[in-house]
Amino acid sequence: MRKETLVQQIFSKQSFLCIGLDTDPSKIPTHLLDLNDPVFEFNKQIIDATHDLAIAYKPNLAFYESHGLKGWTSFAKTIAYLKNNYPGIFTIADAKRGDIGNTSLQYAKAFLDDTEGMGFDAITVAPYMGSDSVTPFLRYPGKWAVVLALTSNKGAGDFQMQTLDNGRRLFEHILEASRQWGNLENMMYVVGATQASMLSDVRKIIPDHFLLVPGVGAQGGSLAEVAKHGMNDEVGLIVNASRSIIYASQDEDFAKAARQAALAMQEEMQGLIAKQKPRQVH
Amino acid sequence: MRKETLVQQIFSKQSFLCIGLDTDPSKIPTHLLDLNDPVFEFNKQIIDATHDLAIAYKPNLAFYESHGLKGWTSFAKTIAYLKNNYPGIFTIADAKRGDIGNTSLQYAKAFLDDTEGMGFDAITVAPYMGSDSVTPFLRYPGKWAVVLALTSNKGAGDFQMQTLDNGRRLFEHILEASRQWGNLENMMYVVGATQASMLSDVRKIIPDHFLLVPGVGAQGGSLAEVAKHGMNDEVGLIVNASRSIIYASQDEDFAKAARQAALAMQEEMQGLIAKQKPRQVH
Repeated sequence: MRKETLVQQIFSKQSFLCIGLDTDPSKIPTHLLDLNDPVFEFNKQIIDATHDLAIAYKPNLAFYESHGLKGWTSFAKTIAYLKNNYPGIFTIADAKRGDIGNTSLQYAKAFLDDTEGMGFDAITVAPYMGSDSVTPFLRYPGKWAVVLALTSNKGAGDFQMQTLDNGRRLFEHILEASRQWGNLENMMYVVGATQASMLSDVRKIIPDHFLLVPGVGAQGGSLAEVAKHGMNDEVGLIVNASRSIIYASQDEDFAKAARQAALAMQEEMQGLIAKQKPRQVH
Repeated sequence: MRKETLVQQIFSKQSFLCIGLDTDPSKIPTHLLDLNDPVFEFNKQIIDATHDLAIAYKPNLAFYESHGLKGWTSFAKTIAYLKNNYPGIFTIADAKRGDIGNTSLQYAKAFLDDTEGMGFDAITVAPYMGSDSVTPFLRYPGKWAVVLALTSNKGAGDFQMQTLDNGRRLFEHILEASRQWGNLENMMYVVGATQASMLSDVRKIIPDHFLLVPGVGAQGGSLAEVAKHGMNDEVGLIVNASRSIIYASQDEDFAKAARQAALAMQEEMQGLIAKQKPRQVH
């Protein structure tokens, strides 16, 4: 998906919400468990109930890999369902991959290729191995590498916040260096909402890149703070919530409850978009 | 597998060779392509031909994921074959995973758990997200997290070699900090053979940890240099070769050729073990 199309979707839906499909079979409503593929059925119902409020979906691979082939089947069915039924929605494989060049190319094919792979719009990528671990993900036109910059977990401070001898913190150096590898049409960055004030520092280096922001909701980040420090005139944000939406209820009304939780976020986002008066795109 | 068992296997086989099962269907002999699962058949024949010369096998997930469910089936069959037929051999899932705590725990289960997961002995882990992204992999007794320190690719210099304001390079800081999270029985580190002289610097910080060393063979690293700078009195090295062994021939004699290539490495390793006169374990 091109950036312009993504921005259009954001303004049209008045939302920059991504829903994280971190679907754990031990947490889904028990009435689904007798079905052939409870995880896919859960995802399908969540997607159907929220597709007009969310601009993106982001399944995290870990929750599928942990169930082996069965999990991979649910995962493949979920992305196929999204692409077939809601082709205008942005899809992110939260896989945090990255390896030596010829190996990263295999991952890129697996997740981004429309014919030989699953055809996601984007994949999250770990930067530690450097340029040739990331650039293979930039070879697919209209597809995106979403590079980890500042994550939402406690351990983010261990290395990402380390100061280098040039005075920059590591995450700032990674932003500086890596933005040269691609462009505004094929790179985004992960910046956690739990560190919202850091978004101002991030915006000094990459004012125009899209940011994928996890950590709102169950992890405690504030949407208003994220918008205040991170929004640009194209909005420039994709804010993810997982558990606070998909497990809003664990009963038979889970899809309806998920819609209510997503609606509350979309309404807050609509207010933030209006307040920031971002440039309307054509 | 406990460290003592691994060390015993190294001395008994006089080898510290790991064979990387980075199996690419476009590179395997054409006579296998008509079979039901050519990738598994290829792996099986490579393993059968080399199991007495290698102490470990390391399939890289990227080569399997890029073929979707079919690839995952080949992958699952390969690890099951190894565990059922050669239970004394060390198995490493080269997956380079790492995520926030509750998500890393899902990955740990997928790859390390003996009953609910695939039961690998070890998994490679990316350190960028810090302590809580790595420690979930340390919860399984007898299982290992193999943390990326200094990788074998060109881009390793981009961030890993950056100097911090305390004078340490990033990879050294990561070694210093992360060795506190676990111990000699559940943590190893990846240090690329293409940077063999750096192994001396690594050994100053972690003299006793096992190191997984990729980059010998197709990537150009020297086995003698690796041993010179990295070997300790338990050997302390698992040296991986992938393409130079598994694609030694792409004809019907591929398994025999792989054995020859593995034998040449094992013989060189035997000489290096003898030369270094490491402590014999009981």
